[in-house]
Amino acid sequence: MPAHDPFLLQLLVIFLWAKVFGELFERLRIPAVLGELLAGVILGPFATGLVVPSDAVQSVGGLGAIFLLFSVGLTTHPKELISIGRRSLGVAVGGVVLPFALGFGYFMLAQGKAVEATFIGTAMVATSVGITARVLGDLQMLQTRAAKIILAAAVLDDILGMMLLAMVGGLAAKEGVNWTQLSVLGAETLVFVLFMTFVAPRVIGRFQGRVEGMTTQNAPLIAALAICLGLSVAAERIGMAAIIGAFFAGLAFAEHAPRWALQARVGALTEFLAPFFFFLMGAKLNLAAMDRKAATMAAVISLLALVSKVLGCGLPALNEGWRVALKVGVGMTPRGEVGLIVALIGLNTGSIDATAYAVVMMMTMVTTLAAPMALRYLFRGAPEPQPAAAVPL
Amino acid sequence: MPAHDPFLLQLLVIFLWAKVFGELFERLRIPAVLGELLAGVILGPFATGLVVPSDAVQSVGGLGAIFLLFSVGLTTHPKELISIGRRSLGVAVGGVVLPFALGFGYFMLAQGKAVEATFIGTAMVATSVGITARVLGDLQMLQTRAAKIILAAAVLDDILGMMLLAMVGGLAAKEGVNWTQLSVLGAETLVFVLFMTFVAPRVIGRFQGRVEGMTTQNAPLIAALAICLGLSVAAERIGMAAIIGAFFAGLAFAEHAPRWALQARVGALTEFLAPFFFFLMGAKLNLAAMDRKAATMAAVISLLALVSKVLGCGLPALNEGWRVALKVGVGMTPRGEVGLIVALIGLNTGSIDATAYAVVMMMTMVTTLAAPMALRYLFRGAPEPQPAAAVPL
Repeated sequence: MPAHDPFLLQLLVIFLWAKVFGELFERLRIPAVLGELLAGVILGPFATGLVVPSDAVQSVGGLGAIFLLFSVGLTTHPKELISIGRRSLGVAVGGVVLPFALGFGYFMLAQGKAVEATFIGTAMVATSVGITARVLGDLQMLQTRAAKIILAAAVLDDILGMMLLAMVGGLAAKEGVNWTQLSVLGAETLVFVLFMTFVAPRVIGRFQGRVEGMTTQNAPLIAALAICLGLSVAAERIGMAAIIGAFFAGLAFAEHAPRWALQARVGALTEFLAPFFFFLMGAKLNLAAMDRKAATMAAVISLLALVSKVLGCGLPALNEGWRVALKVGVGMTPRGEVGLIVALIGLNTGSIDATAYAVVMMMTMVTTLAAPMALRYLFRGAPEPQPAAAVPL
Repeated sequence: MPAHDPFLLQLLVIFLWAKVFGELFERLRIPAVLGELLAGVILGPFATGLVVPSDAVQSVGGLGAIFLLFSVGLTTHPKELISIGRRSLGVAVGGVVLPFALGFGYFMLAQGKAVEATFIGTAMVATSVGITARVLGDLQMLQTRAAKIILAAAVLDDILGMMLLAMVGGLAAKEGVNWTQLSVLGAETLVFVLFMTFVAPRVIGRFQGRVEGMTTQNAPLIAALAICLGLSVAAERIGMAAIIGAFFAGLAFAEHAPRWALQARVGALTEFLAPFFFFLMGAKLNLAAMDRKAATMAAVISLLALVSKVLGCGLPALNEGWRVALKVGVGMTPRGEVGLIVALIGLNTGSIDATAYAVVMMMTMVTTLAAPMALRYLFRGAPEPQPAAAVPL
């Protein structure tokens, strides 16, 4: 804490502007996260240069991503997924395969770089269920058949997206693609995911009494935070992204979250830290990288991102009727934090360039902007009364 | 978020060890904060050197101090103080004047440096009410007459301590002591304190409806965090410690905290961030600075810290009977976060040296260790049943 530390001042400026833009956007019925991103774009070093984030502030932003994904994990209940069954499985798989294939294919044709194309494909996979859930919650439509399919499919989608990210990150660290390595990496990831989803909650359940018996105040929260940090560090050490560890730590605690009031408590941490993450994501957008060719790519990728989810998720739901199928497809289109993090990891490891980063950013913004508007149109009509769900974002 | 960022690893190691030491100490019925400090002393650069905190981690620790003081402010209700009246006023004033006078006087005699002596005196002033409240809460004694006097006096004590710190910090920045400057500084501080205590809560009350009507989720929490950061930065800009701004921001929101569930939410932030602050305080203790002369000073200052609060706070409460007076005196002895921060500011501005820092650290540890043991002895007997109070630390 040296005197006149720019750290606090930067935190204040970023927090204020992110929240002011978020509030303005919300009033225009646009997701707040876009306002936070835009605040970063405008104030960041590539535009006005009013905020050039220090290393310490960047670290706080990274912590924001970790708690954001921990919160997402905490609200992800694998058991609900199993209960809703095969319908959601088809939707989730279709919503992973088609976006990845189209993104990868187009970028290979346009740029011809396999690693970059893999990152773009991966960034197009993960649905930001927070935005859809928020819109459906505002419309009081969370209890409809389409909403239930969307939310369950998005859960699996998150898990599949994380698995894909783990594998892509592992591949990017090595040179070239080796099928043996790919199989080993895939098997490792699968074992890790199955362990965290099915075994870890039981382990936590077994230690429940011991955690609650600790004399430290709020011991369950402390234990959850320690495990979140621990798995984030562990994920980084074995070459995965820290957020993958944080997400699965959240998943492991999801069952126990209501008993220990973890969502509200971790939510306060996310509420404070996540705006720094989104602002910094925006601040990394180099507008100079958006030449005519890049703008074309961004437009095509955005279009593919929309179409691939509507078709990939809608078609497997078609025997629910085309109206439900369309709602499901549109509901799965918004990309968010995971896509941005994939792009950031690509940028930081040198796997993608500033142009590809800008393309992903645009794709995220377009899908996040278009989906709520389309959802409000599709779900118009009398709301079904029901309690509001607590979902982050 | 570069790959293999030591930031996350340091956070994990610090958080784990601080909490493990905290839990061990709590089981031995010693305040957890001492365990967190000791973890820093042992793992820090001056002892084993296992953790050499990076700049980013230091910044997180500073943020921990800010949220810690914000939490203290949130639980400080000036109105309660006014209702308990003159008895607590006498106790609080006695508990500020005598410790400051004895600390300043002894250090002037021992070292002869006025600025250093002023810092030592100031570090001896502020009671850490969190520790006493926790012990009395565990003993179910919060509804006793002595406990009520202690808690109300500690509130005023906090405010007086902050005023003193603001003035001392202002003086340290200038050269020599000038009575005109001192008066101006005192008047400025008084106006600020009166404004934050009596006017700011009304201003917040007036905007209450508007804040609750915002579309941003958890708008009251966001507003409180923004004002906490804003006042911290403002305090730093005008030459005060950031924590003074954070404390008074908390004070301004204290009345509205229950309505907006701010204590639990900000509590989660403090729960996560404060251990880094205490660990880093411990890590700054240079054991090599503890030669024989320093050890003597630490012993004398610790003794004076105990005696000055027992007498300074006990004597004004003497007409409640000597038993109550003794309980009040002992209950006011533990020093904590504020004393440590005074020492840290002194160390960072070059106003005190490593030896004086070590002396304050020892004084904090001794008073924090001795007070709970003495309180448990004095308050032994049948507990009065009553609901547990929510107090940080």
